[in-house]
Amino acid sequence: MQVLRANTETRSTAFENVPAGWQRYGGRALVARFLLDEVPPACDPLGPLSKLIWAPGLLAGHVLSSVDRISAGGKSPLTGGAKEANAGGTTALRMAWLGLFAVVVEGGPPVDGRWQVLVVGENSARFENGDDLHGMGLAAAADALVQRYGPKIAVSAIGPGGERRYLASGITHLDKDRNLTRISARGGLGAVMGSKHLKAIVFEHAKNTPPEVVDEDLFQAAARRHTKALQDHPQTGQVYTLYGTASMVSLCNGLAGMPTRNFSTGHFEGADRINGDAIHDLNLSRGGQVTHACMPGCVIRCSNAYNGPDRQVIVTPLEYETICLMGSNLGLDDPDAIARLNAVANDLGVDTIEVGAALGVAAEAGYMAFGDGRRALELMEEIRQGTPLGRLLGNGAGLTGKVLGVRRVPVVKNQALSAYDPRAIKGTGVTYATSPQGADHTSGLTIRANVDHTKPAGQVEASRSAQYRMAGYDSIGACIFAGFGMDATVVRDLINGRYGWGVADGYLTELGRDSLLMEREFNRQAGFAPADDRLPEWMTTERLPIVDTAFDVPPSELDAMFD
Amino acid sequence: MQVLRANTETRSTAFENVPAGWQRYGGRALVARFLLDEVPPACDPLGPLSKLIWAPGLLAGHVLSSVDRISAGGKSPLTGGAKEANAGGTTALRMAWLGLFAVVVEGGPPVDGRWQVLVVGENSARFENGDDLHGMGLAAAADALVQRYGPKIAVSAIGPGGERRYLASGITHLDKDRNLTRISARGGLGAVMGSKHLKAIVFEHAKNTPPEVVDEDLFQAAARRHTKALQDHPQTGQVYTLYGTASMVSLCNGLAGMPTRNFSTGHFEGADRINGDAIHDLNLSRGGQVTHACMPGCVIRCSNAYNGPDRQVIVTPLEYETICLMGSNLGLDDPDAIARLNAVANDLGVDTIEVGAALGVAAEAGYMAFGDGRRALELMEEIRQGTPLGRLLGNGAGLTGKVLGVRRVPVVKNQALSAYDPRAIKGTGVTYATSPQGADHTSGLTIRANVDHTKPAGQVEASRSAQYRMAGYDSIGACIFAGFGMDATVVRDLINGRYGWGVADGYLTELGRDSLLMEREFNRQAGFAPADDRLPEWMTTERLPIVDTAFDVPPSELDAMFD
Repeated sequence: MQVLRANTETRSTAFENVPAGWQRYGGRALVARFLLDEVPPACDPLGPLSKLIWAPGLLAGHVLSSVDRISAGGKSPLTGGAKEANAGGTTALRMAWLGLFAVVVEGGPPVDGRWQVLVVGENSARFENGDDLHGMGLAAAADALVQRYGPKIAVSAIGPGGERRYLASGITHLDKDRNLTRISARGGLGAVMGSKHLKAIVFEHAKNTPPEVVDEDLFQAAARRHTKALQDHPQTGQVYTLYGTASMVSLCNGLAGMPTRNFSTGHFEGADRINGDAIHDLNLSRGGQVTHACMPGCVIRCSNAYNGPDRQVIVTPLEYETICLMGSNLGLDDPDAIARLNAVANDLGVDTIEVGAALGVAAEAGYMAFGDGRRALELMEEIRQGTPLGRLLGNGAGLTGKVLGVRRVPVVKNQALSAYDPRAIKGTGVTYATSPQGADHTSGLTIRANVDHTKPAGQVEASRSAQYRMAGYDSIGACIFAGFGMDATVVRDLINGRYGWGVADGYLTELGRDSLLMEREFNRQAGFAPADDRLPEWMTTERLPIVDTAFDVPPSELDAMFD
Repeated sequence: MQVLRANTETRSTAFENVPAGWQRYGGRALVARFLLDEVPPACDPLGPLSKLIWAPGLLAGHVLSSVDRISAGGKSPLTGGAKEANAGGTTALRMAWLGLFAVVVEGGPPVDGRWQVLVVGENSARFENGDDLHGMGLAAAADALVQRYGPKIAVSAIGPGGERRYLASGITHLDKDRNLTRISARGGLGAVMGSKHLKAIVFEHAKNTPPEVVDEDLFQAAARRHTKALQDHPQTGQVYTLYGTASMVSLCNGLAGMPTRNFSTGHFEGADRINGDAIHDLNLSRGGQVTHACMPGCVIRCSNAYNGPDRQVIVTPLEYETICLMGSNLGLDDPDAIARLNAVANDLGVDTIEVGAALGVAAEAGYMAFGDGRRALELMEEIRQGTPLGRLLGNGAGLTGKVLGVRRVPVVKNQALSAYDPRAIKGTGVTYATSPQGADHTSGLTIRANVDHTKPAGQVEASRSAQYRMAGYDSIGACIFAGFGMDATVVRDLINGRYGWGVADGYLTELGRDSLLMEREFNRQAGFAPADDRLPEWMTTERLPIVDTAFDVPPSELDAMFD
């Protein structure tokens, strides 16, 4: 395994050995390690000292179900802290097959200002001119890249959002159907890539060889247990497969925790039109793909391809977070309208959570009426065109709130809350507040924790446990749902089968904890303090209807979170 | 002396005794004391827990030359830290005559959403409806308030900028000619006032009685020494009186430290058209007022009233910081064009430094051409109208840079640098970096320090000494120029004459140091860390032409600044 370093400023590339002692890191943990050791924490995240890291999870490369995720990471220009954003698609798999432990992109933009494509093959890497791709949406860019480099490539690319250095922009990866749809969405990593004038990395086709496995029997037995557990679990074997993450609509709405009209209530009267059943049935009636795998080999297949009335695909995929942030949060109950917003966001390569939250704030400021899907779509087009208002929205909810003079802004560390109101699901509120990543459900969702979600008691413990576990999954390359099939013995045996390290049952949690502590140390040096580990003040005083409670987990408990 | 508390949310007012042990604080020191004791450091600066404090300097009330300044303060929504912004005008004098130690404005906006005027008399205070003043520029508001409350009032008010909660908005005070021109400009305190729906505080006329002086002989002798020293010093007795602060143009341009075209160089080819001589001669030829006192009794009279070609006043005053930030920094060498930008800023109640820096960033992003005064004026009108671009500019250089994707943004703690390039005048760069207030020359200008301004050696000491001294002046109510007449014995005797405290020669520095340490403690609790005490990264790598040096005072020296 090798590390590829590519300098966008000098257009030089080099393959290096994995630094001593780093072999045991992967995914999120590896990103944290690179950040702490190589990136000045106080640096300008959009400047030449900033680096971008691609790190496949430790178990990527074997087409295990839901375990081929790619971690992209760096210093977030949105939060100012450590950022890892993982996604499906085929990038991690291809990197593993190419023997790449990590790709590190360094330096500023080239002096000639050109846009570039980094083309990576087996023991080879080169920069090519990408000026013709500049300004191109990701739908067209996917076609152009496949046309140029062949149908078997993997790709990580930015859309116009990243090129414009929007703080809501992500890095998008090609899926198995050759669409650029799987986005490392959160934290503005697309802007970092844009700041270096790197439009795309193309990973060429290579020998179809998974990485070496030291104990094949142990590994395969664990893989089988993992797959069977996913298939047997009602959530991953049935609910997610049939209804996808849209099945969360009814659950969250039932808990009165589904953000609606800029987080002013957690119960959306139009939820029945946009829940899992409704979207499944409508999509099925239009010949849409109701179940779809974002990574080769996934048995859950929670994704979909959503068709419009003309039986043509509007967007792939339409998922819960978007249905909420670009739906109920904007007062929209029309799945087609939501899908169209989602499609523009995907083409621009921006985070639907961040932009949806920004639109909610803009609606509160009077720039659109809640429920007006047509106006919302106009605003998305402004983001594409880069008008002042569009630029504002493309830079996320926090800046939008500041500039438009709105106080009810749902962000922590300047990153938008996802689709679980922290007053109704308080453990997730603790995660939003304390995660080094900024507000993010994938950093530690507690909705299945055995606590009263509306009371402060036990939430810190629930969040801590979820955060450690999630950071562990993010480091081995596992999807958040892989956990339904991964008990401690499965993770242990997969790691020991693959690497022969002899890890114990608690491995995943320890790996996650290590990652978090590295990220927190990076953040501390970057200037973060306890005051940053807080929900917005208004959420501690404004009571959420129905559950009739504000966020009331004491700050002292938040501060003791990682002691 | 009493403290007036006024709650905008409940419309209640109360006079209280000065808290025990606080009698020795005034101005900036008193603001810091209030902040530390009464304002939760991590609170939303535009929320109901945030407070605004009016605190006259300790020596205000005696019509001493240049020593009747008012400190306005609170948690800055621009920087997120402690903020004190002092100004001339008549507010401090009137407060002292009314026996007011401080005014504290508390609470959120009233539930009915109305705009309000707080009317303060002798032992009386009441809220009156100010809806008719809402949206009114400060020129019209001054007339309306004088019309309604009589010609002898003092006023502190916000313009449309503060109403819109622009982070570049200040609080403006009536001058002795009944114009609202003297602005507590920096840090967005106008937005705090706007968030509470308070348009103005009117201080009614009262008995014309200065505060009690315990040793009249000692006090008057020191006052005479002070006045004579100011008159005898060539800088305050001649240069500033004749040419005002515009005289700094030639000095700074000569040092190659006059920010030009968004801080890309420190030497402006058009400086001769906007320097002290040029503006003096042009203004004089048009019948303008070339010397003018911003506070009654000032013998320096560095202010002016600048006339246009039609011999009508365009703006009062036209000063160095504006001439630079809205002039050379925008590539403008036409004093009339600069004066017109300045006039709009004054009417909106926004900081010309912050908005000038934002315009420079916008120019770099292509929203105006450097040197295009007409376009700059259009952009100022957009700020007035509250278009998305106008809102952006009204929220300062930092947000403008983020949203427009510009990396060369001249801010520290999100506050714009003033008119001294920190690469040419490095001690002031140390002040910009380490002041708890964010980048600000009045926190510790080092241009007269006996150091090589272009070398890193000795800059931390020069800045520290200047910061202590300036914080001391800010606490006794003295203008930055009063120092030319205030040696240690003058300050000592004035304080001992006024209060009988028996302070020693080092008093001013100690008072300043105490203020700074309180502010830093507030900032620490608000979430500030060493990484926040830095100039923008690009200023440490991009060399300033002519002096051919980047900012190179080591971070370790910055971190040890206040140890």
